[in-house]
Amino acid sequence: MKQYTILIDSPDEKGLVYKISKVFFQHELNIISNNEFVDKENSRFFMRSVVAGDINASQLQEKLSTLLPKEATVHVIAPKKKNIVLMATKESHALGDILIRYEAGELDANILAVVSNYDLLEPLVSKFDIPFVTVSHVDLNRQEHEDKVIKTLQSFGEIDYIVLAKYMRILTPNFVDTFRDKIINIHHSFLPAFIGANPYKQAYERGVKIIGATAHFVNNNLDEGPIIAQEIIPINHAYGWKDMQRSGRDVEKIVLSRALKLALEDRIFVYENKTVIF
Amino acid sequence: MKQYTILIDSPDEKGLVYKISKVFFQHELNIISNNEFVDKENSRFFMRSVVAGDINASQLQEKLSTLLPKEATVHVIAPKKKNIVLMATKESHALGDILIRYEAGELDANILAVVSNYDLLEPLVSKFDIPFVTVSHVDLNRQEHEDKVIKTLQSFGEIDYIVLAKYMRILTPNFVDTFRDKIINIHHSFLPAFIGANPYKQAYERGVKIIGATAHFVNNNLDEGPIIAQEIIPINHAYGWKDMQRSGRDVEKIVLSRALKLALEDRIFVYENKTVIF
Amino acid sequence: MKQYTILIDSPDEKGLVYKISKVFFQHELNIISNNEFVDKENSRFFMRSVVAGDINASQLQEKLSTLLPKEATVHVIAPKKKNIVLMATKESHALGDILIRYEAGELDANILAVVSNYDLLEPLVSKFDIPFVTVSHVDLNRQEHEDKVIKTLQSFGEIDYIVLAKYMRILTPNFVDTFRDKIINIHHSFLPAFIGANPYKQAYERGVKIIGATAHFVNNNLDEGPIIAQEIIPINHAYGWKDMQRSGRDVEKIVLSRALKLALEDRIFVYENKTVIF
Amino acid sequence: MKQYTILIDSPDEKGLVYKISKVFFQHELNIISNNEFVDKENSRFFMRSVVAGDINASQLQEKLSTLLPKEATVHVIAPKKKNIVLMATKESHALGDILIRYEAGELDANILAVVSNYDLLEPLVSKFDIPFVTVSHVDLNRQEHEDKVIKTLQSFGEIDYIVLAKYMRILTPNFVDTFRDKIINIHHSFLPAFIGANPYKQAYERGVKIIGATAHFVNNNLDEGPIIAQEIIPINHAYGWKDMQRSGRDVEKIVLSRALKLALEDRIFVYENKTVIF
Repeated sequence: MKQYTILIDSPDEKGLVYKISKVFFQHELNIISNNEFVDKENSRFFMRSVVAGDINASQLQEKLSTLLPKEATVHVIAPKKKNIVLMATKESHALGDILIRYEAGELDANILAVVSNYDLLEPLVSKFDIPFVTVSHVDLNRQEHEDKVIKTLQSFGEIDYIVLAKYMRILTPNFVDTFRDKIINIHHSFLPAFIGANPYKQAYERGVKIIGATAHFVNNNLDEGPIIAQEIIPINHAYGWKDMQRSGRDVEKIVLSRALKLALEDRIFVYENKTVIF
Repeated sequence: MKQYTILIDSPDEKGLVYKISKVFFQHELNIISNNEFVDKENSRFFMRSVVAGDINASQLQEKLSTLLPKEATVHVIAPKKKNIVLMATKESHALGDILIRYEAGELDANILAVVSNYDLLEPLVSKFDIPFVTVSHVDLNRQEHEDKVIKTLQSFGEIDYIVLAKYMRILTPNFVDTFRDKIINIHHSFLPAFIGANPYKQAYERGVKIIGATAHFVNNNLDEGPIIAQEIIPINHAYGWKDMQRSGRDVEKIVLSRALKLALEDRIFVYENKTVIF
Repeated sequence: MKQYTILIDSPDEKGLVYKISKVFFQHELNIISNNEFVDKENSRFFMRSVVAGDINASQLQEKLSTLLPKEATVHVIAPKKKNIVLMATKESHALGDILIRYEAGELDANILAVVSNYDLLEPLVSKFDIPFVTVSHVDLNRQEHEDKVIKTLQSFGEIDYIVLAKYMRILTPNFVDTFRDKIINIHHSFLPAFIGANPYKQAYERGVKIIGATAHFVNNNLDEGPIIAQEIIPINHAYGWKDMQRSGRDVEKIVLSRALKLALEDRIFVYENKTVIF
Repeated sequence: MKQYTILIDSPDEKGLVYKISKVFFQHELNIISNNEFVDKENSRFFMRSVVAGDINASQLQEKLSTLLPKEATVHVIAPKKKNIVLMATKESHALGDILIRYEAGELDANILAVVSNYDLLEPLVSKFDIPFVTVSHVDLNRQEHEDKVIKTLQSFGEIDYIVLAKYMRILTPNFVDTFRDKIINIHHSFLPAFIGANPYKQAYERGVKIIGATAHFVNNNLDEGPIIAQEIIPINHAYGWKDMQRSGRDVEKIVLSRALKLALEDRIFVYENKTVIF
């Protein structure tokens, strides 16, 4: 039997689980997994269920929506490979990690293309028979360059997620709006420490004993979008900033791949500039 | 309104969540938190709900039991300080950590007493106005000593948990049976590595790069009971086994206190020699 | 034979190790452990040796100083319990952790007193037969209060380290100057994230997935002194800021105690607002 | 100026550092980094120095050997890319991680070939223009198969390290002797827990809360060689053994790559079935 993922985000009120599980019961759905969370402070209810059964997804979505408070959002998601585009600049570690997983069939996604402002990573990407598109920023202002990037991205059709695998250009609000809640970035620090440029240099100057990486959705404020995943490694005084950068790469790529996997499996709710992750 | 914790452990079948949440709805319970897990391999359903409402706990327990498969177990637990006894031998770090938390009001429990086979820790314990009972093993065989310990423990009345805070005596099956699923131990290794005596020496001999500690319920097979919590710290070649022991103590005490807290908050299900923890 | 710890901090130049080890050899010292680090960027050499032998500490220090560049600092430290004073406000976890270690003989130090701006922790401290001095800030301005605290501290004689075990008052530059490089603080966040007040609330608002604690020396800029140790724990969306605070306490106390141990064992060099730790 | 790595492993005695650093001084060597460790229990001295200067490596090695106890071993290593061969079976994550690093120029090594008992990974490897050799075990007994593998390996000329990147065949003592201290394996558990086959299944059955991976040199006893690096990740009851395997892969690949890097940088001493790592 087919499996569906059901995501519900609703104002909290008594009886929500009862109403929802009643519908599941009436449709003779088999519950594979069920997660709920109530944010008491904001009085908000989140639920993610994986169910197996013989259903019409849009009818079920409709039915659940009717039962729930009208501010609720309900998604009944049928199994389907998601379409993603990767963006990168010069470094290959985060991109390469995704490519190896893709090749191994580990990602439930189609990589439509890799887009970069340099052609440096083309040799790597082309090994995997994935289209590589260079959109150079040379001789263009930020707006002109981004317009070309957006056009390029839109030429690929429907995109579920854009993964910034060390794409080192700042995005404008227009870009972020165009792909709202679809852009996943890896920041090479333990946010909110060391926002902005050269976080490893900043970390070196500050003399920290731990460095980290943060995967997050991108919003209009640089490095301030909802955090999906974070990880760290211990360091010591013997690490120069280049050593930090080298060691940090291992954390970056693991964290970005983990965040991508959570997104592809529809495990992330975004709200109040935070994430709820099941 | 009073809060109740409801624990349900049942063979899995369709409609469980529906049936249970219907009862919650009918009793106008406010769901504070809700966690479910289905072990697909063993077709077993676990649920922990914290609810607020005006209920009769035993009636609600009865009602839920009637609805569920007859092999299910249901506990509706009213808020009540649990009674615990600590046991220790010579080392004070794990015991001391619990005492400091107790003093700070961090533990929702009454410490009835500390029982030891030595009187070494009496000065520490007596600072906290907690009865300290020495049951020396000198001149007694294992059985005789344990009989005295059991009698001592039973003299305290109803005990919810016995916490072995570095109690360095092996328990017989009789002891374990007498306090089934109530004995929490801290083992000073990352189980199942280094079962048995002197795990730090074993770890030193093996040249590991990480050491750890494991809190677990005690069953008849030494160091093989259901694991509640584990934690580790990195070490290196410069650590002699005494250094490992010293560093390991920090992990031991944190892990044991964490396990105790999980137990006191009714967050642990035990089955198949494993734990489900919400 | 007595063991001495030798700390050398010098401009780097060729032959330093040779010159130093020659002196060790001539004095027939047994090298127990030897650590060196060269900060290439600042061309600075650090060395910590633990040696056993029959020596006159001040003569050896004199001899080494003569051999080394004149900007070098040399300390030959004979084994001697250090004198420390603890300061706290209301929370007992960090203070209690140190007290339990002290009682167990784990700290190579004399705790001269605990100083607090409240009397809340007096019952705990007095259990351990350690003087507790309340210096209330009520009806005093910052300067007046601090003057009284400094006078109190100076009344204890020579102090090696002042440990701020959750002392929740901001220190003035005068205080910091009076006890330069002697004040160890625990900050309840992963610095430099969440500098300032209520870091757990800040962390909650930001939706981080990891929280941490930082032990550091105090300098004139709040939360910006040289970092000694940092540690983290993973959290998730289900943690309210009170939960973060509760979980964070375990990290805070372990990190502070670890930093204190490093200081008591003369393992820390401070320079350029950073630490080198052997 | 050229940089050399000097490795010294010697019975401990007074004056070793003095004698060695005197030679460095006389040769006007610039010490880039210097690490020493004395294993007091076994009275053994280890030193790793990176020096810059104008030297004859074999003469310097000779000179140091003459000065030191005759059981000492001295290696003066000139900078030179090491030759490695990778071996794998079916899984691509550990192999792929090394290939991506290789492609990025991150590994100071030549990958001579990848050898496998299946041809499954050939498409991946051939993308990187690295020879892929299948030595099938079908219709061969263990000895016959291994003889063919050894012959294949020897056909590549001098090999510095053989990296078992999830090579799932047991090696005979003959194989291990042929490439003594040159074979690096990744074991998919936190050794010594779960030695042998299917460690993730074993971990699942045991109900552990943490899983890990161990990189080690291979000796005659399966999974019992000197440990180079270990790492872990926390898991919980919701992980089936397939989930553990999936999550474990991230740890495996990072740990194996880290161990390989340590080996390529000549940072590992092996003795007493342990490692000293600088």
